[in-house]
Amino acid sequence: MSKPSIPKGTRDFTPEVMARRNWIFSVLRKAFERRGFQPIETPAMEALATLTGKYGEEGDQLIFKLLNNGDFLAKANEETLAARDSKALGFQISKKALRYDLTVPFARFVTMHRNDIPMPFKRYQMQTVWRGDRPGKGRYQEFVQCDADIIGSRGVLCELELVCLFHEALTALQVPQFRILVNDRRILAGVAEHLGVGNRLTDWTVAVDKHDKVGLDGVCRELADRGFGEETQEGTRRLFSERPEGTAGMAALAAQFPGAAVAEGVEALTQLWTLAADEGVGAPELVFAPGLARGLDYYTGAIFEVQVVDGPVGSICGGGRYDDLTGIFGMPDVSGVGISFGADRIYDVLEHFGAFPADLAQGLDVLLLHMGDDTLKSVLGAAAECRARGLRTEVYPDPAKMKRQFKYADDRRVPFVIVIGSDEAAQGHVTLRNMESGAQQSGPLGAMLDSLSR
Amino acid sequence: MSKPSIPKGTRDFTPEVMARRNWIFSVLRKAFERRGFQPIETPAMEALATLTGKYGEEGDQLIFKLLNNGDFLAKANEETLAARDSKALGFQISKKALRYDLTVPFARFVTMHRNDIPMPFKRYQMQTVWRGDRPGKGRYQEFVQCDADIIGSRGVLCELELVCLFHEALTALQVPQFRILVNDRRILAGVAEHLGVGNRLTDWTVAVDKHDKVGLDGVCRELADRGFGEETQEGTRRLFSERPEGTAGMAALAAQFPGAAVAEGVEALTQLWTLAADEGVGAPELVFAPGLARGLDYYTGAIFEVQVVDGPVGSICGGGRYDDLTGIFGMPDVSGVGISFGADRIYDVLEHFGAFPADLAQGLDVLLLHMGDDTLKSVLGAAAECRARGLRTEVYPDPAKMKRQFKYADDRRVPFVIVIGSDEAAQGHVTLRNMESGAQQSGPLGAMLDSLSR
Repeated sequence: MSKPSIPKGTRDFTPEVMARRNWIFSVLRKAFERRGFQPIETPAMEALATLTGKYGEEGDQLIFKLLNNGDFLAKANEETLAARDSKALGFQISKKALRYDLTVPFARFVTMHRNDIPMPFKRYQMQTVWRGDRPGKGRYQEFVQCDADIIGSRGVLCELELVCLFHEALTALQVPQFRILVNDRRILAGVAEHLGVGNRLTDWTVAVDKHDKVGLDGVCRELADRGFGEETQEGTRRLFSERPEGTAGMAALAAQFPGAAVAEGVEALTQLWTLAADEGVGAPELVFAPGLARGLDYYTGAIFEVQVVDGPVGSICGGGRYDDLTGIFGMPDVSGVGISFGADRIYDVLEHFGAFPADLAQGLDVLLLHMGDDTLKSVLGAAAECRARGLRTEVYPDPAKMKRQFKYADDRRVPFVIVIGSDEAAQGHVTLRNMESGAQQSGPLGAMLDSLSR
Repeated sequence: MSKPSIPKGTRDFTPEVMARRNWIFSVLRKAFERRGFQPIETPAMEALATLTGKYGEEGDQLIFKLLNNGDFLAKANEETLAARDSKALGFQISKKALRYDLTVPFARFVTMHRNDIPMPFKRYQMQTVWRGDRPGKGRYQEFVQCDADIIGSRGVLCELELVCLFHEALTALQVPQFRILVNDRRILAGVAEHLGVGNRLTDWTVAVDKHDKVGLDGVCRELADRGFGEETQEGTRRLFSERPEGTAGMAALAAQFPGAAVAEGVEALTQLWTLAADEGVGAPELVFAPGLARGLDYYTGAIFEVQVVDGPVGSICGGGRYDDLTGIFGMPDVSGVGISFGADRIYDVLEHFGAFPADLAQGLDVLLLHMGDDTLKSVLGAAAECRARGLRTEVYPDPAKMKRQFKYADDRRVPFVIVIGSDEAAQGHVTLRNMESGAQQSGPLGAMLDSLSR
């Protein structure tokens, strides 16, 4: 066949990239587990019916459907075929689809396993999702989401836990200048009421949500385009007006927009701020962002978004509180709060700032050269001893020329090479070469390895 | 919608199962990395053309194809539609498919990244694969393969490395009574020559390969059915006749079936046995199995299979040496040797024998009860202290009734619960309850936690 390639929007991960990705995943996993979150996994393939209708019409079109195996046309509808109706035929020849996010599979999981899981249930899930988006910079068709949710409790300790989790995980990942933006859906609803938005809350929110990208004037133009009057535009300007940070800003906002909904949201966030302060989480990382709107249809309380100052991508994390996770699967009254870490975007941020730990790339501690069959037994014995000391150790598999073996050592960026020639083998000695400095020393293996651990 | 379900042959993994699966993966990862294998990952979605024609006709039919997004019928052929030709239409409306194994994607990876990878290249890869097999006991449509390959070397140290890797990993996984069966394709070919199999080597091998399932008489009946004469049947009986273990058995076989091919295979395996003995690997784990045949089309030298005595499944690992990994992608002369651990089958074996470590299931070390807002600050402070000591720690999120909070503690199987009521908070004390014994003690948090680490 011709030159192979991979689908657009997908990626191969080389060992260097894998080392960095695995580091991100292991830091996140540790952060989740430290707070008692439990891992689950769901299949990549879900029943198409489980996913359809959960992500809006646009989302539905981005779901990857799997063609039924075997003679999939056998049961296809004659008229559908004649009309070349791709949309209708899709549902006749496909029963399974790839996971589009982790939330819907989680809701399905909770519904199906409700008798086997503790409540409250704190789960984390780190798995690939697939979306038929047009591929672009930082936008993939296959990427990993890392979600943590707490369901079965309405307590503010849940929001506190997730804010702390953001803070701990992003600090451990050494993400520079991250900002945890927090708002409450009730604040937005209350403000909208003030501005005479009426039943066009979603419409207004979509415009407000663009503030980051188009600025305040842009938001107002968008509002005008959508038929909102002067009063709404002016009020929206007031929403974005300058205020003190944190709880003082919340109090100021509550005074600007008096009413039950805003007061409720402000009270909840004030409580969250006070608790977070005790945990050492506050300004500048924790930011009250009354204009933050994300995913309004779904969220009902606190909403979160994490951005990086001067970062190369938009938000790297998001989340919020919801009232009804599993109603669509026939299990009512499951409320909770969840967040998602965008591992691929965190990767892009760390790469942009050169912020990855320096020692990740190296997958090998010691390489032993193959000097021929005469000394092979000594070499293999020395390799076993290195491994017994916890060193990642390799023996070059062929008695190739020295030049070639040393080139391999360079390619692998191994810090130490051990050479056991016939003289050394006879003496019971080895030669240890520091590949960075070029320094060499000879002596018994034990002493040489002792010098490594120092 | 109605009661949700998941596709047949797929599984949800609960936290208990995840703990066991993750343990298996982490043991394998450590075993791979200890010998310098480097991780790579490839996309779940490959170009359909990359996968088609690589797994035989039957395999092709088991590949999961992804329906093109959008109006996929637009370019479909009129006649194909009229004829309802599912097979032909499949290739017109699908350009991508799910990974069927890790070997073909690895070959594609090597071909595309040949300038960026060191040679020899030792990679490991632990990823999900998908197959449209009829689901059954131990047979899934979605499962994980854990592969390790060494390419770019013909040295016997590669075979040695993989035999040691089997031994180390399966020992670390505490798989009881595993047997590493080894044969060499040249031995099979040489024996077949003796038996007058001629150009029907694959045919003969397929029959021989059933020895485990149908016994020697069954193999001979199968040979007769396939038109092989008495001579071949008698010779096949001789192949399975009793011999001493290990190298003595190899020598006996070479004497029974004299010739260049058998001698070559026996010499290679004898060398492998000698080297393995120095590494502490030998009988009863290492078994010379001259009747072992697996995947003959592909392999050209040593072949491996791991079985478990009295185990609930067939083989749990396999592998072998190949001469031409990437030729099909236009990159000739890449030889190597690779093995695959079947993680799902290893899971089944460990479960069957009750061989999982006992402490895996527990995801939480300490639960702090929520006794009301008055003592919340003390509780959160104590939780932070627990986490600082490396304990996985959770605070119950609501001031629920004690009974309910203790039920949650039981459900989570947490070994220790900390209670801080108002008296205790005033004194700066906590009460620590051992959930297994029911014993309680009170005192300063530090002293209580010290008693835990003892």
